[in-house]
Order: sequence, then structure tokens, then C-alpha cells
Amino acid sequence: MDRRRFIGSAGLAGILAAGMAPAAHANQAIRWRLASRLPKIMDVPYAGVQTLIRTVKELSGGKFEIALQVAEESTASGGVLEGVQRGSVECGFTTAVRYVARDEAFALDSAIPFGLDSRQMNAWLRHGQGIELLREFYKGHGVVNFPMGNTGAQMGGWYKKPLHGLNSLKGLRMRFSGLGGRVFERLGGRPGSLSSDEILKALQSGKLDAAEWGSPHDDLRLGLHDHCKYCAHPGWWKGGMQFSLYVNRRAWDALTDENQANLEAAAAEAHLDIQAQYDLRNPLALAELVATGTRLIPMPKTIMEAAWKAAQDLYAELAAKNPQWKKIHASQTAFQRTQAWNQPEAGFAAFMQPQLMKQYEAALKAAQKAAPAGRHKAAKP
Amino acid sequence: MDRRRFIGSAGLAGILAAGMAPAAHANQAIRWRLASRLPKIMDVPYAGVQTLIRTVKELSGGKFEIALQVAEESTASGGVLEGVQRGSVECGFTTAVRYVARDEAFALDSAIPFGLDSRQMNAWLRHGQGIELLREFYKGHGVVNFPMGNTGAQMGGWYKKPLHGLNSLKGLRMRFSGLGGRVFERLGGRPGSLSSDEILKALQSGKLDAAEWGSPHDDLRLGLHDHCKYCAHPGWWKGGMQFSLYVNRRAWDALTDENQANLEAAAAEAHLDIQAQYDLRNPLALAELVATGTRLIPMPKTIMEAAWKAAQDLYAELAAKNPQWKKIHASQTAFQRTQAWNQPEAGFAAFMQPQLMKQYEAALKAAQKAAPAGRHKAAKP
Repeated sequence: MDRRRFIGSAGLAGILAAGMAPAAHANQAIRWRLASRLPKIMDVPYAGVQTLIRTVKELSGGKFEIALQVAEESTASGGVLEGVQRGSVECGFTTAVRYVARDEAFALDSAIPFGLDSRQMNAWLRHGQGIELLREFYKGHGVVNFPMGNTGAQMGGWYKKPLHGLNSLKGLRMRFSGLGGRVFERLGGRPGSLSSDEILKALQSGKLDAAEWGSPHDDLRLGLHDHCKYCAHPGWWKGGMQFSLYVNRRAWDALTDENQANLEAAAAEAHLDIQAQYDLRNPLALAELVATGTRLIPMPKTIMEAAWKAAQDLYAELAAKNPQWKKIHASQTAFQRTQAWNQPEAGFAAFMQPQLMKQYEAALKAAQKAAPAGRHKAAKP
Repeated sequence: MDRRRFIGSAGLAGILAAGMAPAAHANQAIRWRLASRLPKIMDVPYAGVQTLIRTVKELSGGKFEIALQVAEESTASGGVLEGVQRGSVECGFTTAVRYVARDEAFALDSAIPFGLDSRQMNAWLRHGQGIELLREFYKGHGVVNFPMGNTGAQMGGWYKKPLHGLNSLKGLRMRFSGLGGRVFERLGGRPGSLSSDEILKALQSGKLDAAEWGSPHDDLRLGLHDHCKYCAHPGWWKGGMQFSLYVNRRAWDALTDENQANLEAAAAEAHLDIQAQYDLRNPLALAELVATGTRLIPMPKTIMEAAWKAAQDLYAELAAKNPQWKKIHASQTAFQRTQAWNQPEAGFAAFMQPQLMKQYEAALKAAQKAAPAGRHKAAKP
């Protein structure tokens, strides 16, 4: 193999990219940049990024440092995935549902309608061949992926009018991200993809009738309740939405074994931390929303069942035309159906909910009695 | 302060303990011993210990190594807690419910009846002041604690005869560990603490009528179904049982900051890994148990409600006499009641279960049709 051919196969971009993170020795300092374009209002995942940065530094004895670059600063154009692929940054933090237009299989690393919840995702990734299959998929995109946080189950959207059944969805103009929009469209809805900045304006101006965005905590912070009185549950399109750390493959390969281990462990630490933070905050947010006027409505059964059927149809079509989807989705589904045997978890949770609600209400009453003139303390009895 | 007084306050044991792990420099090799007395049949937590050992080694570039010592080998006498306190070993792996006879507050680090499930435990520990409160408690025992795995929701016990209501518990001789036994006793039962080796013999000889042990996966491996046809759910006494890594405080203090970070990150990695493994295996085990003759019965509502009331009474009594319990339990309970607002998670899970069961059964039927003479494939359709 002559030198020209070698340069040809690696490519100029590859050589430049390799230059950004030279093969490191154990004692050599590493300085990386991490790009994110998540809205700044998403405080929980950004706190998780800080956990990643702090943990990598601690684990490496201060020798491996990562600097966060938010939004346009970080990539010349395009999203975090493109920036990481190109090598504009060594790594990026994002959620894979953002890239379903490029390839639907990305959604299998984050959320699909009626997909895995957070604990199931961890089990499939770690012991159901999930991470191996996703790494193989991402290899084709020049990226090494690490699960890094999950919102938990999201809300079932915010609506200006209540939902009575499938008819309520006909022609409904609703903001939707990920694969949920494609299912929603099959039910007669009109999904549109808008950024978080645009959603509120579109709801206010009447260009949108409804919107789905994030977990209860995220939705409260964005302020969807200022424009929509009705909030449905559950969000069948996101039983849990996973975030990801994307690492440029050349930058990864240039790390020592020890620094690779440091980065992987730090991502796992942030993964745990983000879910824990959401699990604390989501219920508090929902309590606050309901206490301040939001009407929490169950998603009508006819919608749930029609959406389930439409999702299965979509998956069958995707399997016929997208081999990557077919392979990864088959693994995820085979794992998922065994989770039907969750009687001990489900029975425990079902018994606890009304008992805890009684305790919650009693504590709230006691707090209100103790401070009758105080601010409504729904969220923290 | 003269030298004699200094020696007096640190104590001879302290000096010896400090000697076992001298103040280390960054490049100095660390060799630790980790004790465990968990039954060897518990393959999931032991695999987690291997994850800990491997991860610490990787994160430290091979300079921090931990050797596992199982059972009697590791401690001159007593349990893992005593061995770690004494400094016979630098660290140990156990579950805090083993030490409720010493102080009921240990249970708050693992499982109490109607307590936190696995995700809730993570949220309380990391963002609800849980870890701070537990570290303060363990400081009094000379230990630094790290959460390291969780079984998930356990079964509601194995019974030779079906449970019809509270009367079925009167005089029932049942193996019980942790605080669940104290509640069971208040319902008229006769709890006894037996090791895993003894349980099967006692069931066979008729000395026991019933037994609770672990998660579906653990119970299947132990073989409780060979002696008891009926298995109840949910296990109201363990909505999730957490395992812990205990580290001798002096050994911890002697580590460099980097090695402290390495150990903590490795424990978090094992924590995630153990839960993921259980979440994969527990449903498979339950499916296999039911396919091979176990009768899965819902715990009668009268028992659930009486147990809930008896548990609240017990907690009020403990709060009156055990200040450590009172402080930690109050924090855990205040967090727990906010979790009543889990409609998105609960609604999603409730819709999914019957859909997944249909998929599971269809896959099973297809597998049986494809291989009619093969072994029953209940667990892996």
C-alpha cells in the first residue's frame, strides 16, 4: 500500500481530525471540547454535563479536561452529530431523536413510541446486546456513543381543548419531535417540528393547537401551561427519552486505555445522575402544575389503542426498508416483550400510588394549616 | 496533647488499621481486599463485584487492585460490617438489611416495607440528601458507604398453601429477613431468620410453611418452587433491595483523591450494572417459574392493607426511640410521598403490560410451532 493510497483512504479531513487529539501518553494533558445545542432551559441534562466534566477531571487526577461549548459556538453548521463527525469538537451531548430524519434507527438509542422505559433501556443496553448493536450502527457515522441520562416518561402533550377520542386529533396542529409525529400523522393529526423558542409563540398566535415537549419538569420550565390548560398522560411516544454523549471515533481511539475508561465511567455517573434528578423533579413539577390550574387528563383509550396499532404498522414498514432499524428494533422488541413479566414491580407501584397520595395530601394540609397565609406549597409538603 | 494520649484516642486497632493502607502517592500501587458473605448462588451481585474490581483497575491504569474474599476467609468472626469496621479487610459488599438487629436505621440504606423502589432510591440518595444522611449514620460505624446494586422489587414470598386473607397468616411459620418480619409478626405470623442453606431443608422437613428470599431470579436459582407451589406478589417488604459497598474509613482516608474518585465511579458502574442485570433476568425467571408450574397469586388486599397499617405503626414506634431512624426515615418519607405524582410513568407502564404480554405469547406460540419437540421456551421467546 503506497502512501498516496493511505492518504486517500483516510482523507484530508481524517488527517486534520487525527491532528486535533494526538496519540496521548499516560501523563499528557487532554483538553477536549463538548458541544451541545440543547435549549439552555433544560437544566437537568446540563447539570449532568457538569457531572461528566467534573468526574472526568477527578478520575484522571486533573489531566483530562473537557470544556462545554453551547450552541452555534461549537459547530460551524449543522447539529452536534455533524460537528462530532467532522471533528469540529471531540464530543457532543444530544439526544438521538433529533436525527430520525437522517435515519430512523437513531430513535432506538433514545425513544420510540411505546418503547423502553428508563430501567428497561439500561437492561437492554448493558445485558441485551443493546450497546453492541448501537455502537455498530454509530460506527458507520464515525461516532462512539455513550448513554448519558434519561428524562423518564414524558407528558402526553399539552392541548388548548380537552381530548375526547380519535376525533379530537383530526387536523390538530401539534408540535412533535422524533418518531411520535409519524404515528400522530397516521391518526389524522398535523405534526410540525418547532424549536423550543418557537413553540410558545406559535401557541400564542394560534398557529399551533397543541405541543409535546419533554418531561413534566421540562414542560413546567418552558411554560406550556401558560398556553394550554389540558395536559394528557401518558406520553405514549416517549416512555423515557435517553440523552447521549457522542465521541468522535478518532479522538476516542487517540485516548489511552485509562482515559477511555475515565470517560466511560464519567458518562455512566452522569447517566445515573440525570435520571435521579428527573425522578426527583418530575413529580414535584406535576404537583405544581396541577395545583396552579393545569387539568391533567388521561389519554383516551381509543387514542392509545389506535396509536399502538399505527406504531406497529410503522415499525413493520421501517423493517422492510431500513436494515439497520430492522436489526436493532428486533433486538429491542425481543427484550421488551419479556418485560411483560413485571408483576412484582407493577403490583408494588400500583399499591403504593394511592397510599402515597393520601400521605402527600395530609402533609400538604398540615403545611397549609401551619402557614395559612403562605405561598401554596403543593410541590414540597 | 502528649503522645500517649494521642495513641490512646486513636487506639491500637486504629494504628494497625492505618498501617494496612498507608498514605499513598499517586503512582503507588494499592492492593485491597473486599469481603462478602452473600450466598454464592447470588450470581448477579457477584458479577457486579467483578465489575467493581475490573473498573477500579481500569480507571487507575492498573494501579488499584481489589481481591474478593468470600465468606469465612475474609473475617475472623462476625459479618462483613464487623470485618470492615475492624479493618480485617479494607472493604466489603453486603446488604444493609442484614444489620437491622443492630440498628433499624441500616434498613433505610437497603429496603423497608413499603419503601422506595430502585429508581426512587437513586433519586433520594443523589438529590434528596439521602447519601449525606446515610454517610453521617455510617460515620458512627467507622464506614463509608456506597450504593452498589439493587434487586428490584422482590417476590411476595413462597407458600405451600394459597393465601386467602389475613387468617392465612395466623401462626404461619415463614422465613423472613429485614424489617418485614416485624410487620409480619404483627399480622399474626411467626417469622424466623434462616440462611439460604437452611431454608430448603426447613421447608422440606415441615419446620417452615413459607419463605421469602429474593427477586424472582434469585428465588428461581435457590429452588423455592421445588417446595412451595404458590408465589405471591408484590413483596410489600422489599419494593427494591439495595446492596452496599462498605469501606473502612481509615482505608478510605488513606486513598488519594484520584483513587477515591476511581472507587466511587466503579461502585456507580457496578450499581447500574447489577440493576440492569436483575431487570433483564427477573422477568425471564418469573416466566419460567409460571411455565413450569408455579402458581402466581396476587397478595390479598386485606393483607396488603393490614401490613401497610402495621408498618406505619412500627415506624412511629421506631421514630420515638431511635433518633437516627427518625431523622433518615423522615427524609425518605418526605421524598417518597411526592412520588405519588408519577402518572406519566405509571400510566405508560399500565398500558404497556397487556400489550407486551400479547406479544410475548404470540412469540412463544411461534417458537413452539417452529420447534414442537424442543424444550419449553417460555423464558426466551
